[in-house]
Amino acid sequence: MPRVKMSESDTSMRAFAERVFASETKDEDVREEVSLFDVSEDCPIIHQEMAQHLQDETKEERRKKQQAFVSSVPVTPLAEAGMPTYLEVPEFQRVAVIGDYAAGVTMDDFAMSCRGLYRALCIREKYMRQAYQRFPITASEFLRKIEGEIWKTEDLVVPDFTPPPKPGEDPFCTKTLPQNLGYVARMHDGVVHIYKTTEDADSHQPIDLPTPDYATFIDDMNFLIALIAQGPTKTYSHRRLKFLMSKFNVHEMLNEMEEMRELKNNPHRDFYNCRKVDTHIHAAACMNQKHLLRFIKRSYRVDADRVVYSIKGKEMTMKDLFASLKLHPYDLTVDSLDVHAGRQTFQRFDKFNAKYNPVGASELRDLYLKSENHINGEYFATIIKEVASDLEDAKYQYAEPRLSIYGCNANEWNKLSYWFNKHRVYSPNLKWMIQVPRIYDIFRARNFVPHFGKMLENIFLPVFQATIDPQSHPELSIFLKHVTGFDSVDDESKHSGHMFSTNSPKPEKWDIPKNPSYTYYIYYMYANIMMLNQLRKQRGMNTFLFRPHCGEAGAVTHLLAAFMTADNISHGLNLKKSPVLQYLYFLSQIPIAMSPLSNNSLFLEYAKNPLLEFHKKGLIVSLSTDDPMQFHYTKEPLMEEYAIAAQVFKLSTCDMCEISKNSVLQSGLSHEEKLHFLGDCYQKDGPEGNDIRKTNVAQIRMAYRYETLGYELNLIKDGVKSQ
Amino acid sequence: MPRVKMSESDTSMRAFAERVFASETKDEDVREEVSLFDVSEDCPIIHQEMAQHLQDETKEERRKKQQAFVSSVPVTPLAEAGMPTYLEVPEFQRVAVIGDYAAGVTMDDFAMSCRGLYRALCIREKYMRQAYQRFPITASEFLRKIEGEIWKTEDLVVPDFTPPPKPGEDPFCTKTLPQNLGYVARMHDGVVHIYKTTEDADSHQPIDLPTPDYATFIDDMNFLIALIAQGPTKTYSHRRLKFLMSKFNVHEMLNEMEEMRELKNNPHRDFYNCRKVDTHIHAAACMNQKHLLRFIKRSYRVDADRVVYSIKGKEMTMKDLFASLKLHPYDLTVDSLDVHAGRQTFQRFDKFNAKYNPVGASELRDLYLKSENHINGEYFATIIKEVASDLEDAKYQYAEPRLSIYGCNANEWNKLSYWFNKHRVYSPNLKWMIQVPRIYDIFRARNFVPHFGKMLENIFLPVFQATIDPQSHPELSIFLKHVTGFDSVDDESKHSGHMFSTNSPKPEKWDIPKNPSYTYYIYYMYANIMMLNQLRKQRGMNTFLFRPHCGEAGAVTHLLAAFMTADNISHGLNLKKSPVLQYLYFLSQIPIAMSPLSNNSLFLEYAKNPLLEFHKKGLIVSLSTDDPMQFHYTKEPLMEEYAIAAQVFKLSTCDMCEISKNSVLQSGLSHEEKLHFLGDCYQKDGPEGNDIRKTNVAQIRMAYRYETLGYELNLIKDGVKSQ
Repeated sequence: MPRVKMSESDTSMRAFAERVFASETKDEDVREEVSLFDVSEDCPIIHQEMAQHLQDETKEERRKKQQAFVSSVPVTPLAEAGMPTYLEVPEFQRVAVIGDYAAGVTMDDFAMSCRGLYRALCIREKYMRQAYQRFPITASEFLRKIEGEIWKTEDLVVPDFTPPPKPGEDPFCTKTLPQNLGYVARMHDGVVHIYKTTEDADSHQPIDLPTPDYATFIDDMNFLIALIAQGPTKTYSHRRLKFLMSKFNVHEMLNEMEEMRELKNNPHRDFYNCRKVDTHIHAAACMNQKHLLRFIKRSYRVDADRVVYSIKGKEMTMKDLFASLKLHPYDLTVDSLDVHAGRQTFQRFDKFNAKYNPVGASELRDLYLKSENHINGEYFATIIKEVASDLEDAKYQYAEPRLSIYGCNANEWNKLSYWFNKHRVYSPNLKWMIQVPRIYDIFRARNFVPHFGKMLENIFLPVFQATIDPQSHPELSIFLKHVTGFDSVDDESKHSGHMFSTNSPKPEKWDIPKNPSYTYYIYYMYANIMMLNQLRKQRGMNTFLFRPHCGEAGAVTHLLAAFMTADNISHGLNLKKSPVLQYLYFLSQIPIAMSPLSNNSLFLEYAKNPLLEFHKKGLIVSLSTDDPMQFHYTKEPLMEEYAIAAQVFKLSTCDMCEISKNSVLQSGLSHEEKLHFLGDCYQKDGPEGNDIRKTNVAQIRMAYRYETLGYELNLIKDGVKSQ
Repeated sequence: MPRVKMSESDTSMRAFAERVFASETKDEDVREEVSLFDVSEDCPIIHQEMAQHLQDETKEERRKKQQAFVSSVPVTPLAEAGMPTYLEVPEFQRVAVIGDYAAGVTMDDFAMSCRGLYRALCIREKYMRQAYQRFPITASEFLRKIEGEIWKTEDLVVPDFTPPPKPGEDPFCTKTLPQNLGYVARMHDGVVHIYKTTEDADSHQPIDLPTPDYATFIDDMNFLIALIAQGPTKTYSHRRLKFLMSKFNVHEMLNEMEEMRELKNNPHRDFYNCRKVDTHIHAAACMNQKHLLRFIKRSYRVDADRVVYSIKGKEMTMKDLFASLKLHPYDLTVDSLDVHAGRQTFQRFDKFNAKYNPVGASELRDLYLKSENHINGEYFATIIKEVASDLEDAKYQYAEPRLSIYGCNANEWNKLSYWFNKHRVYSPNLKWMIQVPRIYDIFRARNFVPHFGKMLENIFLPVFQATIDPQSHPELSIFLKHVTGFDSVDDESKHSGHMFSTNSPKPEKWDIPKNPSYTYYIYYMYANIMMLNQLRKQRGMNTFLFRPHCGEAGAVTHLLAAFMTADNISHGLNLKKSPVLQYLYFLSQIPIAMSPLSNNSLFLEYAKNPLLEFHKKGLIVSLSTDDPMQFHYTKEPLMEEYAIAAQVFKLSTCDMCEISKNSVLQSGLSHEEKLHFLGDCYQKDGPEGNDIRKTNVAQIRMAYRYETLGYELNLIKDGVKSQ
């Protein structure tokens, strides 16, 4: 595994990072203002400096540079003889920049920016590889080229997901569970470590697996904080992003009809029967409001006299429960159910969370939307299975619902996996994710946990134990087979005021009532997932992706933390505020599950959503619903999401199919399913990896994306080598 | 029937109207520029003049005026004792303007504007009454008050629609058709007249029914053209509209939660089970693209060897037909079907019309989307019945599809009614409309018709004949029972260059290749529908509404013509350009069927659509799909339309239910159905006419609308009386 050489931790850099952090905290309340990290398009200083820089160069220097740039344009991958015809890229009109200095900044700034971006990419590559998260081959190839090495297929690190059961196979079968390894798992400094024996554990002698290095992580983070605030790199990234936008617009104008021609000639496949995955959806809100209403009415017709609730030891039938709420389900309507987000929820995450309570009654949330209650979550399981059944009927739609693990006590995993197995909540169209709310402060205030370390232990130790000895934890082991990743959730606009640094207390020492910062949460989730994946990979078990909510609101440092740790993210709106991070997300092709309808109700008006802009620039975006119960109107929330995006952003069919393809790639669907849905070469980048017969994405589009990414990476290579 | 006294036709006014018309024609190409009729919000001239005017008034004058205004606020209709509780209006916060001069213009300008608006309303009332179109009671009451009279219920003129068949009754039964009247119908100067005998017809001695008066119509039109261009009236209307907008915003802020409380307390009814009508949809595009694709594939599986097409006498099986197009339905996709509007259709109505041809082949349009072809329109009938069946399943959704009568030959009605009866294309959820394309120029160029009069005759004479002698035209008579109105359709952005005036040739003399103007078409359609409705009303038959496409593009004079003649319109976007017309549409509460998704693909980006603005100001808007085949993605196009509007415009549930209610009122649903869907008093204005148990519209909203309209009408009354 290639290790990035680290410079000595730089005190001045850290101080600078702290200043940046402090100034950003101050700006928190002024959401609408231009952020520190934002470069205004018509900033006069930039223009002035640019003019100065350009004057400084001699004509001769400019000519030489131009020469260098023209020759560095990556070679177009042409269809070779003997390739299957569907992989051929039809002729199309290319946008080339010839005879002008491509980056538009001085050579010194250019070189500095490229070195910074190169190092940032290396940092991400390192953390992704360690934790069995993904990093694109194209970018790795360029990084190796810069280092004078050659990327080899063996270097590819990929996550593992459980394939769908073979015909006749039971997804709940416990017979094939692996044997006990006999290892000991114990938390040390907030991270679970594995030991051969209890004695090893007592003397902290873990088995030989790569472990996260706290100090290096902080150094890397400080480097990135400095990078995203660095003037020249901001200017360079901003200019490259603007160029990417314009380039796509020109490409679209020139080749739109040609792309459409490809799709028209592609038999059997259209947008409707392209696979698409709802990459971000919460299980407790995965049904639409009408569905929930019908379910409540139906349950009352059948179960009115059933004991469904107990309060202070007193059992209540459903009739009693509704009577105590002064309600009769027969009279209920979507309006009185009141779970839909309205104008009142805009910029009010707190009000939004209350919408999870039907009729404002937490009793009903408990009865219908929880896996743990008097009826063992039977209704919740049933309603999810109904949603799954709709997806199975629709055939081409998949979803990745999140279930909560809070870390409040060590028994949560057992209860959740009991629920999953008892009600057989499995569907081939659902891939499960675990979401961890960042609410230590609430648990601490009620004295549920003594310190943050205990919360982490509650979240991760049971999973390690089930991984070490699956047969003693059969239900949890089965459930974990169907879990594909972890999510970190909560209102990002709440600010903890704490800055993650080498001086931060270790989790076991974090016993103050204050909530740790976003980055602190993210680091410890990442570190534990990394250890877990090492162990599970060794055992041949499925691994987990880290896919936090990130950049929905709050500081841009959230997006920086995710850049270092997350396979992909949900939301990403705040990439608008940092050109450097946005450019880095583009270069490393980090998938972003966007939910413009959710944003429209909570944080950002639809027309202002950056989805279209990101998509045009070449960032990898997918569409997701977040909470159909709160946001959607129709029976097909994911289609509603696509339809509205298509209408408002005027997406072409090729755009929509590209977004669908992105969603499958981003998802936790298994290798076997991806082969089936995207084609045999789906892991390859560019047109070679695109089977138009399955994806309905034009090869011209794929070639455009591939060449454009190559061009940008090549610029960085040139920049790094220029000195 | 009260007649409005007409002043002598004013030559100078006509000259002015012509100048206005000429200057507007010139501006046609400059769509984006501010139109002549538009008052810019920060126009310095207005401010200057206003300041001048205000200075001219003495303090004493101002005080007196204020006094007058405060006392003229209409009394709030409070729930009387003994009224059903659902009619009670809960307490809410009202917005009142006290102590300031409400209109913000000088007294002279105010009086002049009000006199003009008063006369405009009288003109509309007259033409509506003559033709059995609708005019709101509240406005009539105020007009009578101004004239010192009292409005009586007997003055109410309402259209008649065929009620749904009683259980066991056959909608196609011809047994109860009325007898032959023995009258003679003949066209005279472009309008069909009724005569007792052929001799009467020869000497043009029609029976005693009110007839349209061409000269008066031109005079009225010229008056309105002058009015909408008159500076003070523009300023006054513009200010009132701005006030209406602000007032609604304040109302919403103050009462939103109270309105929602009403809806929450309203049992059984929510947005999903409020009746809603798709008020504007074309039958040939009423299925979505996926539906059409599936239908084509299915038809091929069943009917491949059936003779379905004949060309130059040679019969072709479906297999032959597809082979000749070098297609196999098995390979077809939504992409290759290519009926969806894309970015290419924006501002290109011509390209849009081509989208009616599946796979670009007019043969397939002919086979699947026409009522007259080798298989007698069997496929078209089947696919429409499938759409109807989906609506029946959805239960709360209705649609008013348009079928075409071109006026190319006299046999069209027979063929269309044969198709309707043969395939029994009836559904309780469909109300039929006839659309007449404005394409005389095309027919004339091919010599299909000798003059415009012949086209009108082909369109209207058969309907008169079937009305006079139903038993001799049983199929047509049955079909007409289910037709509720006429529509006038085509690309409004095409400009004919002709101005409708007393000098325009009569239809029988219009034999030039040039197309008549929009207004010319509209006048002659109106005149014939008026005559037809008089006759049908006399016979106790159902009458027809006139509901043209209007204001989608082109000159604002289109909206003026519709103001004089149409019960309601489709589109109305260009009301943005004329504050006077917009205010008049508000005052006379003319329903507007808006299709923002259609506009988004053709004429106006979604976020710029004036729907929200119109709705806030109190214009009566409904939502419609126009062409699901071209614009929509999901299985429920009307719900898609509502969902997108709700999301983009952030509509509240009350807004959406109000729009749904508007759609039912606007539609051609029968009195019996409206009683059932809206409540017993639906014909009354204000909260009294609103049964919240059926409409789910808050009484607070109804009271706000009613009081606001009353306030504006009262201002006009005061203005007229002020001198």
